[in-house]
Amino acid sequence: MTLTIVPPREEITLSSWAQKVERSALQVMLALTAQPDIISFALGLPAAELFPRDHYGDAVKRVLSADDRALQYGPPCQPLKKHVQELMQRRGVTCRMSQIFLTTGAQQGLSLMARVLLNPGSQVLFEEMSYPGFQQVILPFKPQILTVPTDLDTGMDVDAVADMLESGARPAFIYTVTDGHNPLGVGMSVAKRRQLVELARHYQVPIVEDDAYGLIYYGEDSVAPMRALDERWVCYVGSFSKILAPALRVGWLVVPEELMLSLSVVKESSDIDTATLDQRAIAAYLDSGHHEQHLQRVRREYRTRRDAMIDALDRHLPKGTLWNTPSSGFFIWVELPESVNASELLKLAVMEERVAFIPGNAFGVNGDFLKSNCMRLNFSHHNPDVIEDGIARLGRAVKKSLVNNPPRKWAWQAAKINDEKTLKTKIV
Amino acid sequence: MTLTIVPPREEITLSSWAQKVERSALQVMLALTAQPDIISFALGLPAAELFPRDHYGDAVKRVLSADDRALQYGPPCQPLKKHVQELMQRRGVTCRMSQIFLTTGAQQGLSLMARVLLNPGSQVLFEEMSYPGFQQVILPFKPQILTVPTDLDTGMDVDAVADMLESGARPAFIYTVTDGHNPLGVGMSVAKRRQLVELARHYQVPIVEDDAYGLIYYGEDSVAPMRALDERWVCYVGSFSKILAPALRVGWLVVPEELMLSLSVVKESSDIDTATLDQRAIAAYLDSGHHEQHLQRVRREYRTRRDAMIDALDRHLPKGTLWNTPSSGFFIWVELPESVNASELLKLAVMEERVAFIPGNAFGVNGDFLKSNCMRLNFSHHNPDVIEDGIARLGRAVKKSLVNNPPRKWAWQAAKINDEKTLKTKIV
Repeated sequence: MTLTIVPPREEITLSSWAQKVERSALQVMLALTAQPDIISFALGLPAAELFPRDHYGDAVKRVLSADDRALQYGPPCQPLKKHVQELMQRRGVTCRMSQIFLTTGAQQGLSLMARVLLNPGSQVLFEEMSYPGFQQVILPFKPQILTVPTDLDTGMDVDAVADMLESGARPAFIYTVTDGHNPLGVGMSVAKRRQLVELARHYQVPIVEDDAYGLIYYGEDSVAPMRALDERWVCYVGSFSKILAPALRVGWLVVPEELMLSLSVVKESSDIDTATLDQRAIAAYLDSGHHEQHLQRVRREYRTRRDAMIDALDRHLPKGTLWNTPSSGFFIWVELPESVNASELLKLAVMEERVAFIPGNAFGVNGDFLKSNCMRLNFSHHNPDVIEDGIARLGRAVKKSLVNNPPRKWAWQAAKINDEKTLKTKIV
Repeated sequence: MTLTIVPPREEITLSSWAQKVERSALQVMLALTAQPDIISFALGLPAAELFPRDHYGDAVKRVLSADDRALQYGPPCQPLKKHVQELMQRRGVTCRMSQIFLTTGAQQGLSLMARVLLNPGSQVLFEEMSYPGFQQVILPFKPQILTVPTDLDTGMDVDAVADMLESGARPAFIYTVTDGHNPLGVGMSVAKRRQLVELARHYQVPIVEDDAYGLIYYGEDSVAPMRALDERWVCYVGSFSKILAPALRVGWLVVPEELMLSLSVVKESSDIDTATLDQRAIAAYLDSGHHEQHLQRVRREYRTRRDAMIDALDRHLPKGTLWNTPSSGFFIWVELPESVNASELLKLAVMEERVAFIPGNAFGVNGDFLKSNCMRLNFSHHNPDVIEDGIARLGRAVKKSLVNNPPRKWAWQAAKINDEKTLKTKIV
């Protein structure tokens, strides 16, 4: 074997997309908030103490005893799809079993939808403040991003969507979180749901409706999602992460039948099956009849926590701070006095008061947004006592920030960013 | 709101890639083999009766009782990574914890590696007979595919690889299954492992080494994979699917540290976490010390099944049929008399004898290969009695096929292809 001379190089060449990946200052920041003395309102975590561990454990045991194929590869679990159909019915949506596609969580649902609908350079339309995990999904396609504003009382600016479509925009799809908006906490008004579905039908542009929080509502009843209004142009993304447990990574799509074949091909090339033991165990857990009570309990508890946070914000945050009262989901959106820069505030809050949140501009396209004085607060993760303590800390941090303007300089522990925790800094 | 007139259309527009997805004749065929009276040697399924259901169930229970975060989002489970490090050591590979990346099964490992290394149109080098799940992963990148032959005794034709590289080929990576080749059942000779690693180093082309079957070996000991020879240019893909259970969807990569950040970003956008309950439960199961005994048991049993199949092939297949004796993995590669077309034989075998396999050309690039008289047989799934029955049926089918040449025409039940089982026809 004769070998030609190749100039020395020491590292594997990554794809052009992967070469540009870097950790943002926010990710470094979030990594630090994993320290135990910090009260973090940053991530969209359910309350761990509410997980139905005993009932789920019993379900796993039943499934493992019943059938040796419980640990085998397998086709999607039909009893679980039946339960999903019932959950959808309770959400006001009628669908056929043949329209339900099981996924490895809602995140995979979004990822599969993008791969089935997007070409490189396709247009995608969404709100100027949107779930970063969705933006991460579409970026490798180098899409042309079209954004519209969101009203904090009524949701997405659907008139702006209409104007764009009328002017000739033809996105591959429109993405939105109809209820329990992430990050804004708002629910879309009924009139806007209707209007957006009309637009989707008229311009034949599909809507990807992310409803991860739809069953976590705090009123007497929930408003039906857009999928209830149209079965052809609305593709629905659901999840067990918030209504049961995120550790299981099980979610679902409700889509027109003609998407099933491509979805199944992309799914199989991604991870073959959604973990079949988890599929069966969730079905067995839902069979046991404990879930209705569990859902009522988490709704009640999260409502208490939401109210505790709003009460605490009222008492601890300075005048000129605004927030909304979400009717579903995990988040409150806070607008601080205009002179406060939320990214600078985060440093001060973590370093001096040991409290964390996500600055609003992290949800803008490419992590940017015009307003720098906003933040997303999660209220589901901590109990009311911790919320009270944390918001008191936040209030002190905001007041200090109003005094120390321009902000102090902090020395960041950049040396720490190579450990596993800092790699794991996804904003959920 | 004024709406312009848009011509009627009834379906969502799929991405150009997704528009081309269609079910192959083989997929339709495979769907039929799920019928209970058919003995299928088609898929790479472990033996369900060997799964350690009780011990795994105990592990899940321990994890759920110990910590309410067992059902929460979470960073990769360090105790599991420690166990992976030990498994790698037993495979002859020394690696650091910081080089281990947990995945949702080996399939996701391949998918993530492709996304981190491939640009659209990149060259990829692999064998002319390769795991279709890998081909599925790279196709959306529209790669330039370079193939080399495989020798059924010594594995990949590494001289052909050398020639290609010498002539200027610069693939983004080389993909191979070093041990327990899928579909060929062969293990690469030690000399070829060394030669391929030398080439990778010299030309600075990474190798993606798929070792899903590496710990399922039938000799006294296993030969170390290529990752043991080089930690910079060999990226290793491992899996718990074959050594524990595929239903859990947990696997791992061993890669240079500089790939970790991009891998974590692609992973998070794909499914956020590998199911954290499964991660912890596998770690707890491995803690319990039952795994060594389990591995010995499955190796012993699969070896018995391999030998039973070879014995049955010897007795039931006509003269002029050739096969190999795999030293690891789940598959035997069979070359039938030249006049037999394996795709036609499959129809006859399923319709008249109720036995199934995968025709060899399904593993060629784009499902095509020059030789039409080959098949892949799985020996791990059925017990020796069923293997004897199935190979006797196969022998009858081959003999009929030699008599009925040209083959008879079969009417296919194409009407059935829309149910869930036919969508689920991945060749594992």
